[in-house]
Amino acid sequence: MKLMRVGEAGREKPALLDADGKIRDLSAHVADIGGEAISPAGLARIAALDPKILPELAPGRIGACVAGTGKFICIGLNFSDHAAETGATVPPEPVIFMKATSAIVGPNDTVLIPRGSEKTDWEVELGVVIGKTAKYVSEAEALDYVAGYCVSHDVSERAFQTERAGQWTKGKSCDTFGPIGPWLVTKDEIADPQNLGMWLKVNGQTMQNGSSKTMVYGVAHIVSYLSQFMSLHPGDVISTGTPPGVGMGMKPPRYLTDGDVVELGIEGLGSQKQSFVADR
Amino acid sequence: MKLMRVGEAGREKPALLDADGKIRDLSAHVADIGGEAISPAGLARIAALDPKILPELAPGRIGACVAGTGKFICIGLNFSDHAAETGATVPPEPVIFMKATSAIVGPNDTVLIPRGSEKTDWEVELGVVIGKTAKYVSEAEALDYVAGYCVSHDVSERAFQTERAGQWTKGKSCDTFGPIGPWLVTKDEIADPQNLGMWLKVNGQTMQNGSSKTMVYGVAHIVSYLSQFMSLHPGDVISTGTPPGVGMGMKPPRYLTDGDVVELGIEGLGSQKQSFVADR
Repeated sequence: MKLMRVGEAGREKPALLDADGKIRDLSAHVADIGGEAISPAGLARIAALDPKILPELAPGRIGACVAGTGKFICIGLNFSDHAAETGATVPPEPVIFMKATSAIVGPNDTVLIPRGSEKTDWEVELGVVIGKTAKYVSEAEALDYVAGYCVSHDVSERAFQTERAGQWTKGKSCDTFGPIGPWLVTKDEIADPQNLGMWLKVNGQTMQNGSSKTMVYGVAHIVSYLSQFMSLHPGDVISTGTPPGVGMGMKPPRYLTDGDVVELGIEGLGSQKQSFVADR
Repeated sequence: MKLMRVGEAGREKPALLDADGKIRDLSAHVADIGGEAISPAGLARIAALDPKILPELAPGRIGACVAGTGKFICIGLNFSDHAAETGATVPPEPVIFMKATSAIVGPNDTVLIPRGSEKTDWEVELGVVIGKTAKYVSEAEALDYVAGYCVSHDVSERAFQTERAGQWTKGKSCDTFGPIGPWLVTKDEIADPQNLGMWLKVNGQTMQNGSSKTMVYGVAHIVSYLSQFMSLHPGDVISTGTPPGVGMGMKPPRYLTDGDVVELGIEGLGSQKQSFVADR
């Protein structure tokens, strides 16, 4: 299933995209796309509905594909060729950092370039949405705790991230720096999360063109690994790292400025399109 | 006012501690201690109530002093003498990292020493609770966005934090690593947040005995600074760094093991007491 949230920010309705590409209202059946609704039992209940009898919603603004995210966890340097382009080596185990959940926006919402920013950069990433509380889970069972996948844009301010005194959070958490969606695609639709094409364009020019095949630490490993440090809860989102082609890796570096348009997508998970606008 | 949450985990009632030390039930007046209730208007409404006519609640488990925390932001190395004991220098601007909100527990709840941990450490910190959305605010106006203060125990696993591939989040976010409370003390009761005694004992022995006076970056500066990077929302908690005396700074280092008891407190904000238990 492709689950989504449509409507103005803060007032989105839960919905699903049916096989004909029509948006069907789920609000009579679930409170939102998050928590209980994306648990195994919740997803089974939605799957049992006949989409054709659900009211059709007019296309409009699409919200973040999951609500009530408690943790927005990111994996750093998880593609060997991306690590190389940033001058870093592949870490011996996954690098974890947090993005503020207040950065989460819809997939096509305007992204604000924060005041003082000179190095706002792009990163297409495979997002993993947790559907069941996971603690100390093995790699073999890890995918049982995953509800599905989404496109995640890990927008990053490189100077804030690396030149402003320690820890990357500062450059990752700015308002609007976390577009997720358009859909939470349930895992049954994704045969292999480690074989998905990933792309990103700036003003129509392809900048990233990779595949989740070259991730150093795969989804199952990451979910298991994270669960050794902290419980993962339904609605938590893990952004699993970006393939090569980010602005900071170009010679000379290329950063986003007012008026730039970024489009990005992942095979089977849909695409996003954002205008970048200076936050005056 | 001293606002608190009492009852079993996940089912706490909002309450206040009256002048006689009695716990008064606020659940007929506010949904919880968080969001709307701790906004300037919400706090004014609570302040207008006569505590004596509120039902008295029996003392019992105390929950985290604020509900619905979206961000749990920490400031690193914010006491020059603590930076020195860890072998670090005072950073030229505040170091920010995130603690997972899923780590938040009540002030006297059991703290779980995670599997594989050998370096679980303590840190008494002044917690700042945001009451109004803050974005790009100046230092002069920053305290207008603060609802109040609390004791925050930034429990830390030093090996996870610094020896397990980049970024501190990994050693800061374990379940139960974020006791906050017992009370959210509204800012009108704290004449000067930069002049509060702070202490911590392990098994009765004083380990930390400092003051918020020696913080490098004060509360107003931190709130203003953070708001340049991301919006702060009501219920967000900022843990502002620890004075000297942590286990990793001792020679030899002293870490917490199964059965240790930690007590900590801050002048005017109450105290916490936790048993540390191995998470088997």
